[in-house]
Amino acid sequence: MKAFQLVAPHKAELRDVDVPEPGPGEILLQITGSGVCHSDLHLLHTDGMPYPMTLGHEPAGRIAALGPGVTGWEIGQHALAYIAWGCGLCRRCADGTDNACERFARRIVPGPGLGHPGAMADYLLVPARFLVPLGDLDPVDSAPLADAALTPYHVVSRALPLLTPSATAVVIGVGGLGHMAVQILRAITGSRIVAVDVDPAKLAAAEGYGADAAVPSDADAAARVLDLTSGVGADLVLDFVGTEPTLRLAASIVGSYGHLSAVGLAGGSIPFTADGSAAGLPWGATLSTPYAGTRRDLHEVVALARQGRIRVRAERHPLSEAQTVLDRLRRGEIQGRAVLVPG
Amino acid sequence: MKAFQLVAPHKAELRDVDVPEPGPGEILLQITGSGVCHSDLHLLHTDGMPYPMTLGHEPAGRIAALGPGVTGWEIGQHALAYIAWGCGLCRRCADGTDNACERFARRIVPGPGLGHPGAMADYLLVPARFLVPLGDLDPVDSAPLADAALTPYHVVSRALPLLTPSATAVVIGVGGLGHMAVQILRAITGSRIVAVDVDPAKLAAAEGYGADAAVPSDADAAARVLDLTSGVGADLVLDFVGTEPTLRLAASIVGSYGHLSAVGLAGGSIPFTADGSAAGLPWGATLSTPYAGTRRDLHEVVALARQGRIRVRAERHPLSEAQTVLDRLRRGEIQGRAVLVPG
Amino acid sequence: MKAFQLVAPHKAELRDVDVPEPGPGEILLQITGSGVCHSDLHLLHTDGMPYPMTLGHEPAGRIAALGPGVTGWEIGQHALAYIAWGCGLCRRCADGTDNACERFARRIVPGPGLGHPGAMADYLLVPARFLVPLGDLDPVDSAPLADAALTPYHVVSRALPLLTPSATAVVIGVGGLGHMAVQILRAITGSRIVAVDVDPAKLAAAEGYGADAAVPSDADAAARVLDLTSGVGADLVLDFVGTEPTLRLAASIVGSYGHLSAVGLAGGSIPFTADGSAAGLPWGATLSTPYAGTRRDLHEVVALARQGRIRVRAERHPLSEAQTVLDRLRRGEIQGRAVLVPG
Amino acid sequence: MKAFQLVAPHKAELRDVDVPEPGPGEILLQITGSGVCHSDLHLLHTDGMPYPMTLGHEPAGRIAALGPGVTGWEIGQHALAYIAWGCGLCRRCADGTDNACERFARRIVPGPGLGHPGAMADYLLVPARFLVPLGDLDPVDSAPLADAALTPYHVVSRALPLLTPSATAVVIGVGGLGHMAVQILRAITGSRIVAVDVDPAKLAAAEGYGADAAVPSDADAAARVLDLTSGVGADLVLDFVGTEPTLRLAASIVGSYGHLSAVGLAGGSIPFTADGSAAGLPWGATLSTPYAGTRRDLHEVVALARQGRIRVRAERHPLSEAQTVLDRLRRGEIQGRAVLVPG
Repeated sequence: MKAFQLVAPHKAELRDVDVPEPGPGEILLQITGSGVCHSDLHLLHTDGMPYPMTLGHEPAGRIAALGPGVTGWEIGQHALAYIAWGCGLCRRCADGTDNACERFARRIVPGPGLGHPGAMADYLLVPARFLVPLGDLDPVDSAPLADAALTPYHVVSRALPLLTPSATAVVIGVGGLGHMAVQILRAITGSRIVAVDVDPAKLAAAEGYGADAAVPSDADAAARVLDLTSGVGADLVLDFVGTEPTLRLAASIVGSYGHLSAVGLAGGSIPFTADGSAAGLPWGATLSTPYAGTRRDLHEVVALARQGRIRVRAERHPLSEAQTVLDRLRRGEIQGRAVLVPG
Repeated sequence: MKAFQLVAPHKAELRDVDVPEPGPGEILLQITGSGVCHSDLHLLHTDGMPYPMTLGHEPAGRIAALGPGVTGWEIGQHALAYIAWGCGLCRRCADGTDNACERFARRIVPGPGLGHPGAMADYLLVPARFLVPLGDLDPVDSAPLADAALTPYHVVSRALPLLTPSATAVVIGVGGLGHMAVQILRAITGSRIVAVDVDPAKLAAAEGYGADAAVPSDADAAARVLDLTSGVGADLVLDFVGTEPTLRLAASIVGSYGHLSAVGLAGGSIPFTADGSAAGLPWGATLSTPYAGTRRDLHEVVALARQGRIRVRAERHPLSEAQTVLDRLRRGEIQGRAVLVPG
Repeated sequence: MKAFQLVAPHKAELRDVDVPEPGPGEILLQITGSGVCHSDLHLLHTDGMPYPMTLGHEPAGRIAALGPGVTGWEIGQHALAYIAWGCGLCRRCADGTDNACERFARRIVPGPGLGHPGAMADYLLVPARFLVPLGDLDPVDSAPLADAALTPYHVVSRALPLLTPSATAVVIGVGGLGHMAVQILRAITGSRIVAVDVDPAKLAAAEGYGADAAVPSDADAAARVLDLTSGVGADLVLDFVGTEPTLRLAASIVGSYGHLSAVGLAGGSIPFTADGSAAGLPWGATLSTPYAGTRRDLHEVVALARQGRIRVRAERHPLSEAQTVLDRLRRGEIQGRAVLVPG
Repeated sequence: MKAFQLVAPHKAELRDVDVPEPGPGEILLQITGSGVCHSDLHLLHTDGMPYPMTLGHEPAGRIAALGPGVTGWEIGQHALAYIAWGCGLCRRCADGTDNACERFARRIVPGPGLGHPGAMADYLLVPARFLVPLGDLDPVDSAPLADAALTPYHVVSRALPLLTPSATAVVIGVGGLGHMAVQILRAITGSRIVAVDVDPAKLAAAEGYGADAAVPSDADAAARVLDLTSGVGADLVLDFVGTEPTLRLAASIVGSYGHLSAVGLAGGSIPFTADGSAAGLPWGATLSTPYAGTRRDLHEVVALARQGRIRVRAERHPLSEAQTVLDRLRRGEIQGRAVLVPG
């Protein structure tokens, strides 16, 4: 089969590899779609991956074969694969927070395209417990739900006690993950949603997804958001960019006892001090660096999509064009999410 | 009456001032004890306070007079005063999180000795809703409950979902607030408690308060804590010191999806980035900069003390020696908490 | 001024009474609207009220006078009054759960029209802490938010951890409180909503408010709801009727670890046993008998209305027709909520 | 091997059966201890079980063999088995609430000795994901943790937001599950604990386990508990008996917005109405009928035991005396918990 693999630092290529065989408890997925993420670019330019490694951590597929002992699934069903393959035995995996599995203490939990062979291929092996049924959702366009929707759902659902109707949530960067975050916030909270971006087209789209206000990401952005909240600041700020300017913006608009979640991996930094003052944070603010989501979160994301409350803005490309798509992503030319389609 | 007042930057002195009269909804408290806190030193050396301002934000007293319209209290009762005097009208005050009152958006909420006249005096005016009955608790030694117990209770109670029996909580700095934090953790969780301090006497005391392990704050501290958790790291790290080394230690021992709460105001800083790497934080960690606690928290702190589950280690000094006590506190010569006694 | 008062069991009449004077901490509200509730009928036919007592526990008004010591309010502002006037001093009032105030241990907490003089009058005295600003919301039609929206918001917001996107909420009885419950569920959750009622017109309206399915309340109702959930049952069932048949229906459709909240006071009863079997309850189900809501809940309800996410279906009547309106309510002739307008 | 099996309604006997072989993902446990529970008596006298069925739902054992594909476990390790064997695929199993698995919608989730072959035998087959390592805990006496500790931990941990230091928890029936409940409450909360029982010896033991007060279960019990809470009532009442008198007692002492959890299966019933009045319940009370606990709960229970914070009072008997032990249990002659030891 074909697989788009990292083969050395800064180098990936489409190679021919064997179709894997499912072992006990495993399922073989024939990939119908594999979402392309900014973190694929990050992996491409990182040293020390287990080369060769097939990329692709947003896998959707059709069940092609069941390993010994697998029950509850049938060949032909469509499913989405979860991103963080925990040990299944520790206290964290026991409640489905495999994304914090203790076996990988203080390190990233591996998953498809993230240590294990990924979904930019014709087939993917997945332990059965990491699949969620897609039902009649589109088997191509739904692939990005596995990360681009999972990660914002995770952050928003953990912040729900803050996200009451009187609250304000700000989404900085309404591209791949951000355009899903706005939809998720609209679907599961009654809070006011403010979108911030440099791109007027993305801001306009965000309003279509349910944002109550759209603020250009310029020198006035902080003042405008504070004004929208009568100076109180936001209850949740999601930074899907992660440069120093966006983190500083986030810090300056989050309210007392509000939450700032930094998701975008652009490498920016702000100073954290006990009184928050060095970064302009108010007292009581909390900061987080989330990773993926829980197994239950993935069920909820699929439920939102099956109810029609969220939808990925997807563009489809053949797997053979993986490198071209990555190049376009790096140049900021992808709206929403690109999905690679094998064969 | 006598009042120990900030009169200029870096200058405080005992002055004679008028006894205040309680207005509608107010209560006049005859101070029985006023705890002395590191933040009093901080205020002494800060510019821009409303001079003159009586210090003292850990007030215990006996009710001496009731203003018009006050019900539910009787002269002679002993009470503790809450530290953050919110507006009483906004959504935050509506659920007792006056410490994040919207009227003081993104700024500190004033309280006694923190913008309003404080408790280092013979008498203190307090709006009735900010008092909690002390019952038969010691009216002098209980004063520090108002901050030295409130603040750690606030952090620990907010982190309770993390603090299961399989969890580990680390307390860095087991002095004034820290010695209360260890007792509170022991009283309301089944988690393992690790105390970290430079002072062997404080570490020994912490074990007496219920810490399961005591770790000297040296170059091996991170390795020892990680070893105690099989490399997984702590679920909660409370830093009551707040220097750069203690914040770095905290970041290096908190586990994935653990929480680091920075309370001590020593001015240290660590870099916060979306992947946590700049400070050695694992994925999913959250950071917070708490302020005081809620009105309900103060009720709970007093309940813990009335049940005998926590106790302030207090030393008593006359109000007239306030400056001497502050000097001793700066030199690190106070064990537990000093309480000033008027008259 | 005019006041519609209970004067004896089963007897209410419009009387002339003095306009009250606001004492310390109190505000005089000139009533702009007073919602009429089924529980007013209940009170009318209950013995042992403090006769005479002015009815009306859904008060909206304009601030007419401020008592001594009141700050943060101005004459002319419009406000809604909270329904459960707790002591303001106990641990429950400390976090705004005045509806469970300890001073009224295990008994109902009194409020306007519920022990205190109510809102079916030209003026109403309210302690300042129980008012929430209405802003530019309609000062007549918003009155029912004080109970008809507060009570369902309270139940739904407490059940939020159950109400994930994969969950189903069933609302039995989509009249006064029920038509608000459907809107609130739609506004603050991504769950599927099923409306159940005997009245096809109310079911059609419920679909307009956001219900995903409408089920006639007949012998097939349980089977239909179970079918909608693939046999799993509902995560939340709200019974706004409260007859034995509706409670039995609720018990037979709630899922394992789902929640059944009985709000309607029609007097029905089901047997509760440890295995749930006597009422057809599955293992793990929880049952509740909520009362009103918290002070914070009222802020959130007003925020929802100010954002346009919920709206009372109100019909207006002069205060002088209070008795006629109660009669129509008893005969089931009111759609949504009736509001009495003084003057 | 030997297995104590239900062979017909009201009839159980020790039989010889084949040692099972572990399939993919399964582990063969050599039983070291099998706790004996009141629900075993219940099963013995229930119709319609899948005869023959080996009893025993509190399994502790030593790993004797690993099926294909099992990783993370070694032969010789000691482990406890979880009681509710969910499908592993649905949204509930995804977060470890297998005890509410959707595959067994609204019905009990089967487990060892509860539909599947149980632990009153020499060997037991367990899917690997349902085991929790015992470490160096006693492999016999720890068996009852699997239910007698799991079930109360589940209830108490779900009620933690209520169980603040100012709260009161009442345990009715301090036998098998109750004596664990008192220890768990003492270990993980700062609440006041009141034990209620008819047996003075059990009450004395409960005080030894950390109960703050012991109240004989007689006609004065309700008055005494209410008096201990100044009339406010309890925040949590756990009824481990479940007769009509104990449920009525529970209803009459739970406070407004308190929680009553009915665990004991003695078959009693109280009427549930929307205002609670028929059973003497106050407004806002919640009732529950919990089943077992979650997979994470079992990890936490084992963590509590490994820290020495809870301990089963166990008496050991050979497996061959299973019937005799059941007879003694029925006659109320077991203190704490009996454990059957094979071989």
